[in-house]
Amino acid sequence: MSVIYQQVALIGLGLIASSMAHAMRRAGVAGEITGYARSPETRATAREIGLCDRVCESAAEAATGADLVVLCVPVGAMGEVAAEIGPVLEPGATVSDVGSVKRAVIEAVAPHLPEGVHFVPAHPLAGTEHSGPRAGFAELFDNRWCLIVPQPGSDRAAIARLEAFWQALGANTEEMEAEHHDLVLAVTSHAPHLIAYTMVGVADDLGRVTDSEVIKYSAAGFRDFTRIAASDPTMWRDVFLNNKEATLEILGRFTEELFALQRAIRTGDGDHLHAYFTRTRAIRRGIIEAGQDVDAPDFGRIRKG
Amino acid sequence: MSVIYQQVALIGLGLIASSMAHAMRRAGVAGEITGYARSPETRATAREIGLCDRVCESAAEAATGADLVVLCVPVGAMGEVAAEIGPVLEPGATVSDVGSVKRAVIEAVAPHLPEGVHFVPAHPLAGTEHSGPRAGFAELFDNRWCLIVPQPGSDRAAIARLEAFWQALGANTEEMEAEHHDLVLAVTSHAPHLIAYTMVGVADDLGRVTDSEVIKYSAAGFRDFTRIAASDPTMWRDVFLNNKEATLEILGRFTEELFALQRAIRTGDGDHLHAYFTRTRAIRRGIIEAGQDVDAPDFGRIRKG
Repeated sequence: MSVIYQQVALIGLGLIASSMAHAMRRAGVAGEITGYARSPETRATAREIGLCDRVCESAAEAATGADLVVLCVPVGAMGEVAAEIGPVLEPGATVSDVGSVKRAVIEAVAPHLPEGVHFVPAHPLAGTEHSGPRAGFAELFDNRWCLIVPQPGSDRAAIARLEAFWQALGANTEEMEAEHHDLVLAVTSHAPHLIAYTMVGVADDLGRVTDSEVIKYSAAGFRDFTRIAASDPTMWRDVFLNNKEATLEILGRFTEELFALQRAIRTGDGDHLHAYFTRTRAIRRGIIEAGQDVDAPDFGRIRKG
Repeated sequence: MSVIYQQVALIGLGLIASSMAHAMRRAGVAGEITGYARSPETRATAREIGLCDRVCESAAEAATGADLVVLCVPVGAMGEVAAEIGPVLEPGATVSDVGSVKRAVIEAVAPHLPEGVHFVPAHPLAGTEHSGPRAGFAELFDNRWCLIVPQPGSDRAAIARLEAFWQALGANTEEMEAEHHDLVLAVTSHAPHLIAYTMVGVADDLGRVTDSEVIKYSAAGFRDFTRIAASDPTMWRDVFLNNKEATLEILGRFTEELFALQRAIRTGDGDHLHAYFTRTRAIRRGIIEAGQDVDAPDFGRIRKG
């Protein structure tokens, strides 16, 4: 493939940014990769493993001369970073991000970008429970979706270029409006994460069942929750604080349905339970057919003989 | 290894029983394996794939002459099956089960067993989202725990023999009292399953986000819930109806904690959220260290390059 951007600046060097760096190299789409992370340790690690062509000492330095700047910091830090890099951005450059929330990021970032800079928010729907610059790998985005959230008046050529970039990194792209993005993600990601964190917290906190028992006997279902609940705490704090309304709405719906199932258990309404548990299988089938999960039993943890 | 039981009868031929059949053959611990399933289709499949040495036309026929009978039917069907096989059981035979609930199974099964038969309830903590006789594989129990629930007056030799049997199938064994088992499983399995079913149901039912969107964008967390929520509906209906008190108690605790986190989101209490999300990481580490899950990112769905 050929170069799509001459210089890509990654601000923040965690799982997503480091995976982007590997995927950019695999695809050969970036002339130079510059990077910056706030923590000196992270910058040192990034230098040690050769993650970027240049690891810089400030966000502004990394962004200087870049034709694509991607903000890969927690959602709550986006505004501050945008304010830092705003002054050095050149007309025609594109600024994007990988935040899990779009409306709040747009409100935080847009005011800091000068005229002539293209702002094209994005969100690659990919991740693992591991964090930091060593967690990245080139395949993270393969066959995953990257949602692109064009702004009113966005330059179509700039949007198309960013979509081509994400496709070169292995992703499928789709355009979506910010509010709808935030609701879709509240359902498919934010509420499930909060629920998983809660369930793990309850298990940890229950006096009559020890942590050692929870750990030993986790294979009966619980351990799948712990994977999600091992995700980066700062990232997730910011997601919930910045997608309050949609997350709380979905959690309200969730609680309502949970109460209905609890009542069915209490009253012994087996038909209600059976019908509910049957219905949810279809969604799983759809996900397998869409190539968004593996059908190997137990996620392929156990290899069949 | 050497034969531990001359004839093992499997009543019910789903995921657990079929995995037991494969694991018994791998270990060479059963002289003959007889089997029975209520559904003619399941019996035909079991014959077609040679799952047992003999697939019988009744539970009583399968249990006749067996020195180990394992009840592998949904928890709600255990009592009926015990009543059927009771008359054919020989003194010195052992009856066990693999039910996810122990107190209710003991109450349903024990009255039907004649004097001189050893009743040793058990529960292997292993499973996948797939069901039926074709879903089994020999490795399912490797390095998993099988909880043994001895009854007052149980014969120690019969207990030791069943533990040796499960160890030969790959499992670690531990003895536990029935009430405590039911509480531990409510935390590590039953509540997580109900929560996963609920979340998938909410997503399926939300008018403003289509099923197609939920499926496409599931990689952001949701799909891990759908694996659990694809488990067998009949089995799970019976689990909840037969472990009511413990499940409802854990769900009550869960709701309480979820409400506290929702309030933290609403009021913008980031410190509370961050502290909660940090605490839950330790449990995940414990599970990895205990060999009860893989540390590969994303359950190893993505292979690092």
